[in-house]
Formats: sequence, structure tokens, C-alpha cells
Amino acid sequence: MAKDFTSREEHYSEWYNDLVQRADLAENSAVRGCMVIKPYGYAIWEKMQAALDKMFKDTGHQNAYFPLFIPKSFFSREASHVEGFAKECAVVTHYRLKNNPDGSGIIVDDTAKLEEELIVRPTSETIIWNTYKGWIQSYRDLPILVNQWANVVRWEMRTRLFLRTAEFLWQEGHTAHATSEEAKEEARRMLDVYADFAENFMAMPVIKGVKTPNERFAGALDTYCIEAMMQDGRALQAGTSHFLGQNFAKAFDVTFLSKENKLEHVWASSWGVSTRLMGALIMTHSDDYGLVLPPKLAPVQVVIIPIYKTDEQLKQISEKVAEIKTRLEAKGISVKYDSRDNQKPGWKFTEYEFKGVPVRLAVGPRDMENGTVEVCRRDTCKKSIHNVVELETLVPQLLDEIQQELFKRALKHREENTVKVDNWDEFKDAVAANKFVMAHWDGSGETEDKIKEETKATIRAIPFDTIAEEGKCVYSGKQSHCRVLFAKAY
Amino acid sequence: MAKDFTSREEHYSEWYNDLVQRADLAENSAVRGCMVIKPYGYAIWEKMQAALDKMFKDTGHQNAYFPLFIPKSFFSREASHVEGFAKECAVVTHYRLKNNPDGSGIIVDDTAKLEEELIVRPTSETIIWNTYKGWIQSYRDLPILVNQWANVVRWEMRTRLFLRTAEFLWQEGHTAHATSEEAKEEARRMLDVYADFAENFMAMPVIKGVKTPNERFAGALDTYCIEAMMQDGRALQAGTSHFLGQNFAKAFDVTFLSKENKLEHVWASSWGVSTRLMGALIMTHSDDYGLVLPPKLAPVQVVIIPIYKTDEQLKQISEKVAEIKTRLEAKGISVKYDSRDNQKPGWKFTEYEFKGVPVRLAVGPRDMENGTVEVCRRDTCKKSIHNVVELETLVPQLLDEIQQELFKRALKHREENTVKVDNWDEFKDAVAANKFVMAHWDGSGETEDKIKEETKATIRAIPFDTIAEEGKCVYSGKQSHCRVLFAKAY
Repeated sequence: MAKDFTSREEHYSEWYNDLVQRADLAENSAVRGCMVIKPYGYAIWEKMQAALDKMFKDTGHQNAYFPLFIPKSFFSREASHVEGFAKECAVVTHYRLKNNPDGSGIIVDDTAKLEEELIVRPTSETIIWNTYKGWIQSYRDLPILVNQWANVVRWEMRTRLFLRTAEFLWQEGHTAHATSEEAKEEARRMLDVYADFAENFMAMPVIKGVKTPNERFAGALDTYCIEAMMQDGRALQAGTSHFLGQNFAKAFDVTFLSKENKLEHVWASSWGVSTRLMGALIMTHSDDYGLVLPPKLAPVQVVIIPIYKTDEQLKQISEKVAEIKTRLEAKGISVKYDSRDNQKPGWKFTEYEFKGVPVRLAVGPRDMENGTVEVCRRDTCKKSIHNVVELETLVPQLLDEIQQELFKRALKHREENTVKVDNWDEFKDAVAANKFVMAHWDGSGETEDKIKEETKATIRAIPFDTIAEEGKCVYSGKQSHCRVLFAKAY
Repeated sequence: MAKDFTSREEHYSEWYNDLVQRADLAENSAVRGCMVIKPYGYAIWEKMQAALDKMFKDTGHQNAYFPLFIPKSFFSREASHVEGFAKECAVVTHYRLKNNPDGSGIIVDDTAKLEEELIVRPTSETIIWNTYKGWIQSYRDLPILVNQWANVVRWEMRTRLFLRTAEFLWQEGHTAHATSEEAKEEARRMLDVYADFAENFMAMPVIKGVKTPNERFAGALDTYCIEAMMQDGRALQAGTSHFLGQNFAKAFDVTFLSKENKLEHVWASSWGVSTRLMGALIMTHSDDYGLVLPPKLAPVQVVIIPIYKTDEQLKQISEKVAEIKTRLEAKGISVKYDSRDNQKPGWKFTEYEFKGVPVRLAVGPRDMENGTVEVCRRDTCKKSIHNVVELETLVPQLLDEIQQELFKRALKHREENTVKVDNWDEFKDAVAANKFVMAHWDGSGETEDKIKEETKATIRAIPFDTIAEEGKCVYSGKQSHCRVLFAKAY
């Protein structure tokens, strides 16, 4: 374990905070609730972005960019939307500073007050649907399949790096359709894209489902979600996709002339994932030695460290490594050779372990004699000695294997910590023990609220694959037709 | 010419505005001064970003992300910086909205007033140098070579799509160095990167030089720039790179222990280009038929349009085109086949011409018989008939040729409209005729101001390649040692 580094067992949330900062992923800034994403953390986010962006484009979407600011009045137009976001809005009221006449510094210039306040976007449905009004006249203008990569601001009172920050980075898809069916299909398609990304890039198993009305996005008719289990058993909502019906089209008067020549309101979906995924990634795989990264999202997949005493040894090793590096890079693998002379190999081992580099190669004088390399994989920390000529086939295989293993391990963890429960006492115990709990629920928001009050567990999703099964609500004893997923959540 | 489309001759700035909107590049939003970048415009920006990002990484830079908001007090710390930006700052004063008790809608919640106002970043030197304080202790922590892709806000009163908007997208590099020389070298290196990008991707010739003290970035010791001539003869500053000395390090108390074990302030550079480049791209190449794009930045490089009467003809053409498309795509060319049946070929020709697609292929029944294709290049609008089998070699060559020709044409235009002038009357005439004017200047800010007052021309740059040459200032008659570049500017 790295020195002075909290273990998961000791204190999970301190472990998380320590890890984020010591692995150079992010740090708190001078602005309350806003984070600085450091180069190493940002490099992981860039890998996420690149994979997602390709998936969006492969499913027919284009990127665009809409204003950071939203006129206050736009929010009032969709009643549940304003209800959901009004309490956490950063509001721009003035557009100029001036020197304080008393010489004490700079102050806001009162003469430069905006006629209408501007809200820093917490999400962009309103400004985008106001724009779509100008883009849509006929069914021929539909569908519109647009995504935006942007920063958004939600004035959260209790913030945590990546998981909940006042400003965060995300993508938000906003699509417009001629029919309800198409809009729903789109919302479901994008949830599948998210699930695919979570499982195949992040190596993070997810449960796909629909939210209860209580947990819906403000302004949606249905919210679909992917939910993942973190190592401490708590759930993390990793992505949501919303069927918005005609709510925003009605609020912004966006109509189209249908094939049948009728004027109708447009149907909508929206969907987003954010830098929160960084938190999910960390809490799915990392350990008491630091970050563990799935190879597909690792900025550096292989690090090579020389072990030497003399300059001559270093020179020989470096020549050998240059060959290895070239050959691995030709296979599309990102390789870093760290030959810095101001740090010892042991320090470097710990450092790259902490940074989650999936594969470490070490080359020393004995290896040079024998034509070998020491290979260490980050997920198991197991070492083995291999012939240099094997590396070209071994390393790609190993990266694949690590990617698969991380997924399997996380899935096993979730399965072992998911329970079916049929009575209230067992329910409370299971929630207290941080399990995913599949239980019957009577379908009422009231019961949902009471369960939350008493246990802190919320309904994370009605899983798409839940089985029709008659039962009694675990809380009220009323009739239920399927189990839903309860858990405490981030 | 496209219908109802203003020509450049008639009214250059209307031509520009019409073009931006009709080519689906951008539009004004409901928020004063903020634009919506539409999918086609954004696709061009993405190509610019990808090329620049690669160049930044190839020169050793990493991306990171810093907060959108800057505490007001940070601005006061660097005197000339606040002076430069205070008059155009969007200021966040509150963090919550509420329902108006009178039922009239939502209002700002007065009880949620920030203790210290936050400025929406107009540029990030202050927040970044406040962060660097925590990152830098020793010379071993240097250099820091970081870039950020972000949105920024400057409350401009007179805005124009891409050229001057309240919110714009950009990248800002912020580097920290142990010595003045290194920081200067970095600023020069990044100016070279910008010039390389402008000339080799945008096909836009630029003049590299240094700004006069009057035109420097607020807080810089030196500002280097690239300046391009637009088609109307006016200059556009396409990118700047600043040597910041120790100004921000001193303002935020960022010191390091040198190799000689002395505590010293860190040296800095910053550099940026923005979505303004989109405006520069348009005004360098486009014509009265619409947008003209250099192939390296065209989202669609080749469009293929079928010409047919019967469904059977369309089927046959589509099969042929599928082959052509696959073969061109294998060469890394982006190809779009537009077989929509609700628009006539003539309409499509005009449409893609307007959107600046570099090469258009048309395939009709006669071509099918002869194994030929009609090829039309956007830069010259010249058509020619070619054998299908030639396309694989012809199209890549043609794209290269168009890229080169656009550069040459722009360079010729600039050379033909650049004059050396040695007396005041000629100077005024040349400026009035929208020329780039190389003239002697006495080196004083006062003279510079007067020339600007009388002619609207500013000193765009003291070009790096200006020749040492004794002369008399064109305005004051005082001694001068070299000519500088005057022009009216965007």
C-alpha cells in the first residue's frame, strides 16, 4: 500500500478522496464546488469522450454548440423543469466591473445590470428547444439528432470531486422526432449505447431500467437509466436517457407539418453522461494500491522501467527498450518509458501502480543477459518473466485479459451483493449492509418516500429484465407485480 | 450565384452574415451576443480542433480543465489584467431562483447572494496561476505545458457571428517555466504552431510578428500574433501567443526552488485561438456561390450526386457509387452520397456548392454507359469528365491541388494588396483602399493613437521579417528603424 494512503476498509470515502488527488486526477479549486481536472484525469476523460463520440456518430448524431446562458424566463415555460432546477442555478445579473471610487479594489458596476437575468445552463433543453423552433417546419426536417459536449453548472451544496460538483463536464443529446415511438426508441437506443460503453470500455457492469416517477428528470415522461454497483455496495447512476414527450415542444411552441399535412407538436428525447463517470470508474476497480484502469481507457497502457546501476547499463537497456516500445506501439498500444534518473525503480513501481497503468515492464542487467523482461499486471499485481520476443503477442493478450477480468470481477461483486428480500426486517438489514435489494413495491410514490426516510434506500430502477411475478410490497404489504431495485446511492 | 444571396461586391459584411447562416454554420441565439454553432459549422470546428490538438500534443502539451468561474478578487491581483477585462465581464451574483410570491413567475432569490461575486472566465490566467501555486515547488516541477479547450465570455457590445461574440469557444495554453528564455521560446514555438496550422490546414497565409505595447494582451510583456488579410483587405488577428514574464507568478505568489537552490518567481506564457478562426476561414476563401473550404478542413470532401429518371437507373447508379465511395474512403477521403429523391440534382449542386464541398461527382445514365463520372471542383467551379477507374488517383490529387491553390490564391491576393508607403497622403489613401500598408513609425503609442483616430488603421504587427531600414515616421516624420504593418482590422 502507498504510504499514508487510507485503505478502502478503513474509510471508503476518504480512500476515494485521497486517491483522486494523489493519482493526479482532480483537485478542488479556489471556487466553491468547482474542480480542476488535472492532466492525467483529463487524459482519461478524453479517452471516454473519444469512445462515446464515435458511438454517437455511428448512430447518426452530429455535434453542435448552444449558448452557456439561458434567459430566466425560458425556465418558467416548463413547470416541472423549473421546479427541478431553480434551487441550484448560478445567476448572471451584471455585465461589467469597475474600480471602487474609494480605491479599495474592483466592484460590480450597478449601472450594468441585465434587463433579464441569465442562468448558467444546468442542462440545455430550454435554450435548445427555443432554437429548434427555427429549425423545424415539416416532417422532412425530422429527426434532428444533435449532441453537445459542454460544461454545466448546478449549485450543489455538498460536493465531491467528480461525483457531485457545481460545474461539471458532460455531453447532452437532444433529439426531435415526428412520432412518440421514434422518440422513445431513440431514448432506448442511447441507453443501450451508454450500457455498451460502460460495460465494454469502463468494464463496469450496469443494470438498465426505468426510473419511478419520483426519480424522473424534471420535464420527462420517462427516464431510463444505467445503474452500477460501487465497491462499497452503493449504487451510482451512470447515465440517463429521457423520453420527453411533447413537453418542451409545447413549452416552446415547436410544431411541424406531418406527412398527412397536419400541424403537430414535435416529440423529444434527451440523454447525458458526465465527468461523474470518472468517479464510477474509480470506485468500480481501484484498490488499496491506488487507481486501477481498464486498458481501453488507460492513457498509458504499458510503462517500461529500467533497472540499472551504471550509465552503460542504462544505455544498453534504453536501446533494447526503444525496440520493444516501437514494436508495441505498432500494435496500437500506448507505451511510456520512464528513464528519469532522479527517482529509484521502486519509487517508480509504486507511482505507476498508483496511477493504474495496466501493465508494467521492468528491464534490468540480468534480463539483458537472458533476453527477458519482468511483466507485472496491475489488476492482480502478479509478476512473471517472459522472453522479449514473446512481448508482441503477450502484451495485447494481457491487455484484453485485464479488460475482461476487471469486468468479470465487478460483475461477480455485484452478483454476490445483490439479494432478493421479502420482508421488512430483512429489507432493512440488507440495505444497512449496502446490498442491491430486489424487492416488491406497491408502485406508490408515498411508499417510496417512506422507505427512503426509514432506510435511505431509493428505487434505483425498475430493471428492464425484471420478471413479472406477483408479490406483496415489502413495506406496505400491498399487491406488486414485479421486483424493483433498491439501494443506497451516490 | 445562389438566389437572394448578397454578393461580396454589393456588401461584404452582409455577404458574410448571409453566408454564415445559409451555409448552416451558425446563427444568433435568444441570448444577446451568444451564437448557436450549427452541426455543419461545428463539424468544421471539430476538424480544426483535432488538427490543433494533435499539434499541441506533438509539442509536449497535455490538456486539463479549470473552473468556469473566477473569484472577483483574483482579477484585482494583476493590475493591467483587470484593466483589460473588467469592462466586459459577466458577473454571477446569486445561486438560486424562487417562485415570486405574487405568482408572477420566477425571480432571483435575494437570500442566495454570493459573498464574493464570480466572474465567468474571459480568459483563465488568474484561476490557473492560482492553481499552479499548488503544483510548483521546485525546478523539477517545471515546465508545465498545459492547454485547455473551453468556452469563455467577454461582454462585447457589437457582436458578429464567429468574429466577435459574447461567448466563444477556444483553447488557451498556459505554461510555466524556470527561465525567461524558455517562456519566450515557448510563446514563439506556439506562434509557429498557429502559423503552420493557418497556412497548411486553413490555406490562409499569415504574417507573424509582435504587437506594439498598445495592442498587447492585458498582463503580457510581449504579444506575438499571426495576422491574415481577408478578401476585403482588412486584417484579422488569427491567433496570439503571450510572453507573460513573471507577472502572474508575482500576482499569485508562485515561486520555485531553482537548481541553484534559490527561490524565484516562475515565468509564463499563454496562447490561444478561438472560433474566430471560422470567420477567418470564411473570409479568406469563400465566394459569391457560397462557402469554399480547404479540403483538409472539409467535413465532406467529396459529394456524389446521381442523375436519373427511373428507379432502375437510380438502382444501377447507386451500386456503382457504392463501389466508388468504398474505394475513396479507403484512401481516407470523406464521401457523401446524396440520393434523396425529394430534391432535383440542380438543387443539390447549388446546395453543396454553397456548403463548400471541395469536389462534386455526378453520375448519370450516359456515364453508366461510358464508365465515366463528371468531376467538378469547388474552388474554380470547373467541370471535367473522367473515367471511373481514374478516380482513386485523381481525387486525392485534386484535393491536394485545391488545398494548394486556395493558399496560393490567398497569398497572391495579399501580395497584390500590400503596399509600401512613405508619406501621409499616400498612407491615408492606401488605408482607405483597404490595403496592408508597410510604413515607418516613430515607435510612440501617441503617434499610433493619432493614426488610428485619423484613419482607423492600427499597427497589426511589427513583422518578424521586417527589414532593418532607416526612415521617417509616416505621421510624425521622426526617426524610424523599420517598417511596421498597418491595416484596418476585424
